Amino acid sequence: MALSRTFRVLSLPLLALSVTASAADLPVRKSAGEIIKTSQPSDWRPLDPANTLYMELPGGRVVIELAPDFAPLAIANIKTLAKEHYYDGLAVNRSQDNYVAQWGDPNAETTPKSLGSAKAKVPGEFSVPMSNDKRFVRQKDFDGYAPQIGHSNGFPVGRDPKAKTTWLAHCYGMVGVGRDNNTDSGSGAELYAVNGHAPRHLDRNITVVGRVVAGMPLLATLPRGGETMGFYGAKEARTPIISVRLAADVPEAERSHLEVMRSEAPIYQAVIEAQRNRGGPWNKYAANYVELCNATIPVREAPKL
Amino acid sequence: MALSRTFRVLSLPLLALSVTASAADLPVRKSAGEIIKTSQPSDWRPLDPANTLYMELPGGRVVIELAPDFAPLAIANIKTLAKEHYYDGLAVNRSQDNYVAQWGDPNAETTPKSLGSAKAKVPGEFSVPMSNDKRFVRQKDFDGYAPQIGHSNGFPVGRDPKAKTTWLAHCYGMVGVGRDNNTDSGSGAELYAVNGHAPRHLDRNITVVGRVVAGMPLLATLPRGGETMGFYGAKEARTPIISVRLAADVPEAERSHLEVMRSEAPIYQAVIEAQRNRGGPWNKYAANYVELCNATIPVREAPKL
Repeated sequence: MALSRTFRVLSLPLLALSVTASAADLPVRKSAGEIIKTSQPSDWRPLDPANTLYMELPGGRVVIELAPDFAPLAIANIKTLAKEHYYDGLAVNRSQDNYVAQWGDPNAETTPKSLGSAKAKVPGEFSVPMSNDKRFVRQKDFDGYAPQIGHSNGFPVGRDPKAKTTWLAHCYGMVGVGRDNNTDSGSGAELYAVNGHAPRHLDRNITVVGRVVAGMPLLATLPRGGETMGFYGAKEARTPIISVRLAADVPEAERSHLEVMRSEAPIYQAVIEAQRNRGGPWNKYAANYVELCNATIPVREAPKL
Repeated sequence: MALSRTFRVLSLPLLALSVTASAADLPVRKSAGEIIKTSQPSDWRPLDPANTLYMELPGGRVVIELAPDFAPLAIANIKTLAKEHYYDGLAVNRSQDNYVAQWGDPNAETTPKSLGSAKAKVPGEFSVPMSNDKRFVRQKDFDGYAPQIGHSNGFPVGRDPKAKTTWLAHCYGMVGVGRDNNTDSGSGAELYAVNGHAPRHLDRNITVVGRVVAGMPLLATLPRGGETMGFYGAKEARTPIISVRLAADVPEAERSHLEVMRSEAPIYQAVIEAQRNRGGPWNKYAANYVELCNATIPVREAPKL
């Protein structure tokens, strides 16, 4: 990277006031994208149709992978709601900039739709026993919100070895269960997805059930609501939910065929390392660190057979 | 919070598999919003018209506060570009989900618009001497990307006391200068704003010039581009830029009258603390931590006189 060296030598005397860039050039290293290209079929797993939701919006499909290790009760209730077509015809009622998009029953406070055979109250699963999670691979980086962080079966995770608990972290695209003050007041009838910088203060305060693995732009680009907390006002257009279905209940020909990189595969650790220490020529400084929510788990279309 | 205690006692025997919520109730504390309501006029400062840009899009105005302490050379060039109406008629050319929206000359590679009297190359100001920054107030929380973090005159900042350098952090809404591999290749003709989780690996790799203090949804909700890195393809609709002006060059009656909380005011430290340790009844767990990019700096409409 001769040019940036030249730059440094030429510029510092003139611009000592303000320029401290380019102390040394970084070695050229494989990027995360280049490493992913070297992956083998065994580094990927298909989504499990029994734990994948399709939310159909007018603009397309949002695919949500559920994480039953972390919220078995909420997820069982959400599956009941989906099977009984509870969400169909409801709407995205909230879009708060740099926080969450939230969907459910716009008339929940006045003429609520029946929950059918689903439960109205589900105990909060804000964290679960570490023993629930057999696939945790620790990420070595420090985190301010959790004693340990890592990934489990394609989800970002915090955990506390002293309390022997584990929980899903509120990274971009993570999906959680709206609730009121009571910890059991979230039934899954109201769900949200993080659409901005990770609100990690919500970790251990609310039940997280999974993450959006495709279609996140459909939620992230929604107009922001004009009322408090980004709720839409009476006169604002809401995005209707055409349907929410479990993938297993959708004919094979209509399914999305996506694969998630196995977070327990060694290649995923290499992907994280490539993000911790990026190489030249574009990068001039390597942080030797990657924050949990920046270490995203790759998703791809399943290769055609 | 008797209810959550009741919940714990009743539920644990039945649900020991999964429920560990609500170890103890949190004291009720003032929220950040409640603290902000107690602020005095002296806790706020108006935006400086000489360091505020208005980018007019068809949907409304994006207000960008510039931080000349951190990027004097780039900002001088951007002011020249704005004064000479360089940006007018250009477009937002890139919208990458959970990364950045970027604007500039869509024909930069073929028939580029003249930069007028602005410079085509500006030395990178990826970090600047700590002595540039007289208003830094340290935030006590650990950060993986910087030895120290804090706020300076309403901007999130990292710094390295050993190297005696300081830099603006890539939080949501921060605005930076697109560049190629060479550190001096960013002139300010291409700018971007962070539209998702903070890409802090860009810190010290690129010149950051300020932040969007109003109108961020206009950029965040743009359709994502269909090409690599979220660039729009030839057939995709780009959002035109009507104009970019320095507020000082806009008639007083057409200006936005915004105030930013003084990050050096004690009340701002109380706002941060309220986010580090949130109180009940909704919150059940307090992190005793707030990540730099979650400690946002309040902005308000100036009260009517």
